[in-house]
Amino acid sequence: MTAIESSFAEPQPVEPSFVEPRSVPVPRAEVERRLVTFQQSLRAEGIDAAIVSQNADLYYLAGTVQQSQLLVPADDEPVLFTRRTVARAREESPLTVAELPSLRRLGELVAEWCGGAPDVVGLELDVLPVDQFRRYESQLPGARFVDIGPALVAQRAVKSAWEIERIAAAAALADEVFRRVPGLLREGLTEAAFAGRVEAEARALGHQGVIRMRAFNAEMFYGQLLTGASAAVPSFLDTPLAGTGLSAAVAQGVSFKPIGRGEPVVFDFVPVLDGYTADFTRIFALGELPGQLTEAYACARRAQAAACARARPGVACSAVYEAALEVAESDGLEAHFMGWGPSRARFVGHGVGLELDELPVLSRNDRLLEQGMVFALEPKFVFAGLGAIGIENTWVVTADGVERLTRAPEEIVIL
Amino acid sequence: MTAIESSFAEPQPVEPSFVEPRSVPVPRAEVERRLVTFQQSLRAEGIDAAIVSQNADLYYLAGTVQQSQLLVPADDEPVLFTRRTVARAREESPLTVAELPSLRRLGELVAEWCGGAPDVVGLELDVLPVDQFRRYESQLPGARFVDIGPALVAQRAVKSAWEIERIAAAAALADEVFRRVPGLLREGLTEAAFAGRVEAEARALGHQGVIRMRAFNAEMFYGQLLTGASAAVPSFLDTPLAGTGLSAAVAQGVSFKPIGRGEPVVFDFVPVLDGYTADFTRIFALGELPGQLTEAYACARRAQAAACARARPGVACSAVYEAALEVAESDGLEAHFMGWGPSRARFVGHGVGLELDELPVLSRNDRLLEQGMVFALEPKFVFAGLGAIGIENTWVVTADGVERLTRAPEEIVIL
Repeated sequence: MTAIESSFAEPQPVEPSFVEPRSVPVPRAEVERRLVTFQQSLRAEGIDAAIVSQNADLYYLAGTVQQSQLLVPADDEPVLFTRRTVARAREESPLTVAELPSLRRLGELVAEWCGGAPDVVGLELDVLPVDQFRRYESQLPGARFVDIGPALVAQRAVKSAWEIERIAAAAALADEVFRRVPGLLREGLTEAAFAGRVEAEARALGHQGVIRMRAFNAEMFYGQLLTGASAAVPSFLDTPLAGTGLSAAVAQGVSFKPIGRGEPVVFDFVPVLDGYTADFTRIFALGELPGQLTEAYACARRAQAAACARARPGVACSAVYEAALEVAESDGLEAHFMGWGPSRARFVGHGVGLELDELPVLSRNDRLLEQGMVFALEPKFVFAGLGAIGIENTWVVTADGVERLTRAPEEIVIL
Repeated sequence: MTAIESSFAEPQPVEPSFVEPRSVPVPRAEVERRLVTFQQSLRAEGIDAAIVSQNADLYYLAGTVQQSQLLVPADDEPVLFTRRTVARAREESPLTVAELPSLRRLGELVAEWCGGAPDVVGLELDVLPVDQFRRYESQLPGARFVDIGPALVAQRAVKSAWEIERIAAAAALADEVFRRVPGLLREGLTEAAFAGRVEAEARALGHQGVIRMRAFNAEMFYGQLLTGASAAVPSFLDTPLAGTGLSAAVAQGVSFKPIGRGEPVVFDFVPVLDGYTADFTRIFALGELPGQLTEAYACARRAQAAACARARPGVACSAVYEAALEVAESDGLEAHFMGWGPSRARFVGHGVGLELDELPVLSRNDRLLEQGMVFALEPKFVFAGLGAIGIENTWVVTADGVERLTRAPEEIVIL
């Protein structure tokens, strides 16, 4: 099972049997299966070889983030050309590792491994900086380059049983931190000080700190622990909640606002363990909340239920999004759904895995759900000047529906 | 003065007069001066207009990270085309803000603002993903694109008086966290749990969490709090210290190793306040350290002194690097200087500012120091299987030398 045993087995919550997490390396068979699938998509797109170098993709296909160029010929054995450090790459990756003394030797090494320079080369053009791309062009002067980012992102959206276990372990970390919140939350603490307490617990439990996002300029630090009106402040990321942040330089997340009574404490927390992320939101409050907010929370839970009832393999993302939206509309809350005014986010969920912004996006798009996809579903309502409220769980698509990975009780916790 | 008053005024340490930090927005005059200098370099390179979009560069030139395209004509008024959120961009930036409904409208808006499509367009090609670049190509089909990343990085390396105050405030945050370490460090705590305690203090003091780095795939989370043999484990980043990390997925930083007696606790801590970073290392230990390590530490302090004695405007980075290296060599410690074996880093310091990996790099390169440059100087020695030891301060280049911004006492702290 997972490193942190979930303390919220259903239907009846039981006591935690917490075990300190330990690193779980990517098994050889897992890497091999991923590479076989990836090579199939290379062949389907007429690509002779791909060169992969971005951290999340490298970890996915090679089990390491050591500074490397992973060469994946469409029809031959892959090799990891590692610049730094070769010793760790050999220890961490099940693949053949060869030393890359300099990127200036890459062309020569690729031609040697492939028995000639490949004509069509796949690169992660969705994340690779232009200057870096030009180094590949000069190393492989005859090649035509095509984007393998979308294929990799699509492949990574469907998780293996082993990956679902990893995400469940991250989800259990969120559950465990949630359980500790009542001991950490105090009236008058600044959002920043409260976040620090929460993050310290997460860290001791093995949270890796670094949260990876694929989109250019996207940044995230542990999630959004926001209280009262702060939670209704939108910002640059296309997310339902953002917060003022500690300054315009970061422009999201916690502020120096003191936590008061009778306002929602949005505990939107991103756990990351062994590279894998889940996503999680619960609501705490010091004292009772205004009826408008508790009613909206009930609506969020019904929106969640409606979306989950719709979600199964073969169903379009748009259907899941619309199921949630319809509940908001029938309660007359659509103007507050996933933000307010021009900053409303037009999705209700997103894939999670090695990055926080994975597929599927639960929005008006035609992508079909597949068994093994894992997404965070986060119906939230935002009231300008008042605050935000909502729920977020991480779900895996099963053969005939969805199963919840974050297991903490869903009721608002009044302290 | 700075938001957190330094508690280590020299020459005599005094008691802290700690003030909770508050956000300090970029002043209008500051933004205007930066844009004038940037426009000069555009004209010098024959660029008609630049479009800037990366978070750190945007914050530098516009005072906001709201999702924007900053258009800087070489000879005309800049404008910030903002997609999300326009209201915050208007609040945060002193520039003219115009709404950008979609990137598909950018070409048209640029041509309108410039009175015709510009021929030569500068973009941050060192950080911009290829797919994103192609969107600019399709929006400005006749343009020739040139890289403005290096010019921006070079400009940003020389700090204004206001920026030096910001970095001094970040440095004072490190000093204050350092002061609290004796209350946080306990035998048997895991590195991860100790880091959590430290990070919670930093957060309550206003640490923004997010640390920006410019290099592709570069990641950093609060620095490297490493103990004993863990500190001697190299990894993918070109840094003197890395650590095993909590798993191969992150591959650096703290681990689950418990902190023991008689081993160095390397407190390599990256403070970030209002967007600006400093860098800082001190050594703690529970009980006395082996003589080999305390001797190496004395050598690190002499290397620091030698490098600082050499550093002043007009001196090449290589001279500063070699001054430190010569001290290591004269003590017979060059094999341990800035790492060991194939993983030795070939620099002894790096610029800090809005990103952690700024210019100048104190390595064998010909760049000349200029007044206003700010760098972290970090002579460190690494002993495989034993640990690492060294010191790191943040320094500003003055008219005739350097001045220290991190002020904590430099002695090893034995607890």
